[in-house]
Amino acid sequence: MSFFLPCFTLNSLENSCANLIDPLRSGDIRALSRAISTVENRAPGWSDLLKALFPHTGHARILGLTGAPGAGKSTLVDQLARFYRKTKNPHPSRTERGLSGAPVSDENYTVGIIAVDPTSPYTGGAILGDRIRMQEHFSDPGIYIRSMATRGSLGGLARTTADVATVLDASGCDLIMIETVGVGQDEVDIVRLAGVTILILVPGMGDDVQTIKAGIMEIADIFVINKSDRDGAEHVEKEIRSLQSLALRRDGWTPPIVKTIASEGTGIDGLGAAIADYEAYLSKKNLALSKSAENWQERLVEMLRDAMLEKARTQFGDGNLARLASEVAEHKRDPYSLVEEIAQHIGK
Amino acid sequence: MSFFLPCFTLNSLENSCANLIDPLRSGDIRALSRAISTVENRAPGWSDLLKALFPHTGHARILGLTGAPGAGKSTLVDQLARFYRKTKNPHPSRTERGLSGAPVSDENYTVGIIAVDPTSPYTGGAILGDRIRMQEHFSDPGIYIRSMATRGSLGGLARTTADVATVLDASGCDLIMIETVGVGQDEVDIVRLAGVTILILVPGMGDDVQTIKAGIMEIADIFVINKSDRDGAEHVEKEIRSLQSLALRRDGWTPPIVKTIASEGTGIDGLGAAIADYEAYLSKKNLALSKSAENWQERLVEMLRDAMLEKARTQFGDGNLARLASEVAEHKRDPYSLVEEIAQHIGK
Repeated sequence: MSFFLPCFTLNSLENSCANLIDPLRSGDIRALSRAISTVENRAPGWSDLLKALFPHTGHARILGLTGAPGAGKSTLVDQLARFYRKTKNPHPSRTERGLSGAPVSDENYTVGIIAVDPTSPYTGGAILGDRIRMQEHFSDPGIYIRSMATRGSLGGLARTTADVATVLDASGCDLIMIETVGVGQDEVDIVRLAGVTILILVPGMGDDVQTIKAGIMEIADIFVINKSDRDGAEHVEKEIRSLQSLALRRDGWTPPIVKTIASEGTGIDGLGAAIADYEAYLSKKNLALSKSAENWQERLVEMLRDAMLEKARTQFGDGNLARLASEVAEHKRDPYSLVEEIAQHIGK
Repeated sequence: MSFFLPCFTLNSLENSCANLIDPLRSGDIRALSRAISTVENRAPGWSDLLKALFPHTGHARILGLTGAPGAGKSTLVDQLARFYRKTKNPHPSRTERGLSGAPVSDENYTVGIIAVDPTSPYTGGAILGDRIRMQEHFSDPGIYIRSMATRGSLGGLARTTADVATVLDASGCDLIMIETVGVGQDEVDIVRLAGVTILILVPGMGDDVQTIKAGIMEIADIFVINKSDRDGAEHVEKEIRSLQSLALRRDGWTPPIVKTIASEGTGIDGLGAAIADYEAYLSKKNLALSKSAENWQERLVEMLRDAMLEKARTQFGDGNLARLASEVAEHKRDPYSLVEEIAQHIGK
């Protein structure tokens, strides 16, 4: 979905990616977009770029929003973006240039939106959503929107999303929203990396359609019942409450239920307050760092998995792998012993 | 969701898992269930068990069925199971004992169903579905049903499902159906491993709800429009046709569109014929082996990824990882350089 924009000019690859860092940090929109593309496409220099950007991160608040298709996620995210653009940031880190390169005249939050759409390119989810919303926010240099679709099997979507959030964070974005459809393991992994996870439900979609991925209920820090003027809102609330009574959270937090009608802007202030409440709770209980450390442990394992596989493939060669796969398909070889042998052989 | 049934008796672990193989191959239902649990839970001996079973596999036809929630997958799978139980298997491999331990008096296909339900335990998908369908088929020793829910992040669901299919195949099951909700990358990975992949659509659910994961449209060998007596069936068919015109398949196959009303058993014979047609096409074009080799290459990469991560974790230790994750969370360390260092260190 994203076009490939390689990260090199007349200089060497490394120099070129290093050259992105200063303009990116001073609000150059083209540098930001190129940096994100480099990371998203795993283009040459992506790893060095992230290494260089990491020291500049840790400033942004990161929200993860997920829910079934049709729950009104995009509308809610847009309303939240408007809300934060009107809210003063007590600790701004950005330059006078906004995320779109133009000056930001206020001291309010700048907002980055990563819309992760793992659905089919045919249905045009990512691209279409991008265009419509780009247009609407085009005039506000304090908002940057990026759509991401599925990456290949190597390097999961969750990992790439987290890396893109790192780039946005380093660019001086004050608040990042990661929005995704909450139905697969990918999506659970994506929102798990956020500081605050928001699950969006909607009345009257039926249990079958609203089926929520295992693990999502458990990781939601805030429940939103959107389209709450519809019949069945009370029923959804009752269901959440009864599920909550089954599973106590380790951190002692009881996720609030916020009712919204995003299309009318109703309940957005309340949602903003609920988000701030949870962040204050984490801070008061000294949980913010341990939550972040837990997230990083999962991310490190993922990164290590990819790095080790890369090492195995480099040492072993894809051609050899194809040949062995054929032998397994012909039942000449048992794959379980084979993988053990390869793993033992690597690094020797 | 699955209960843990460890694979050991008075003997050593290895002996015990080895002891499962003969009874499993001769139709002992308890041995089959224990073997599946061992593999699913990665209980001690799981790897040796699979190594020992692999030479006995390659006989079963494997169908993957996927589609949006509410598309009627379970009903369709049940109807297909009935269909195959009435169909004579020209190459039976099983013993006189069926998959449920009782004798099978016919020469028709025995059927294994793996229902993969990555949705919440709260909604009761796997357990409830299991019970209802277990009851109905209880009297037929030629059908074995197993529900699987999400596994932990280590060892993906797709991999575990493939391993469970290996156990069923080795047990003498003639035809295996893997059924899953087609909305996440997990599900794409799961059905990709089948010999024949069937995508189930349904009229009138709206584009938003029917959103299909990228990659699923491309890998469907057969499209089913279920509940085809509903308004909009023609529209869905037209959409599939127009999408098909965008993407030609490398193997030259044009996936047929089969209309069914699974709840009434309508169109099931036609679906069975379409499945046989595709298998005949693969066989005629000598594509069956190359398709299997491609699948195995992907599986080997997955297995290698897990094996390498396991190696890294063993050598490195989870305690060290937790400590480093804390340092990353405190921004004392850059995770990208860290992972490179660990990967370089492993195996030295």
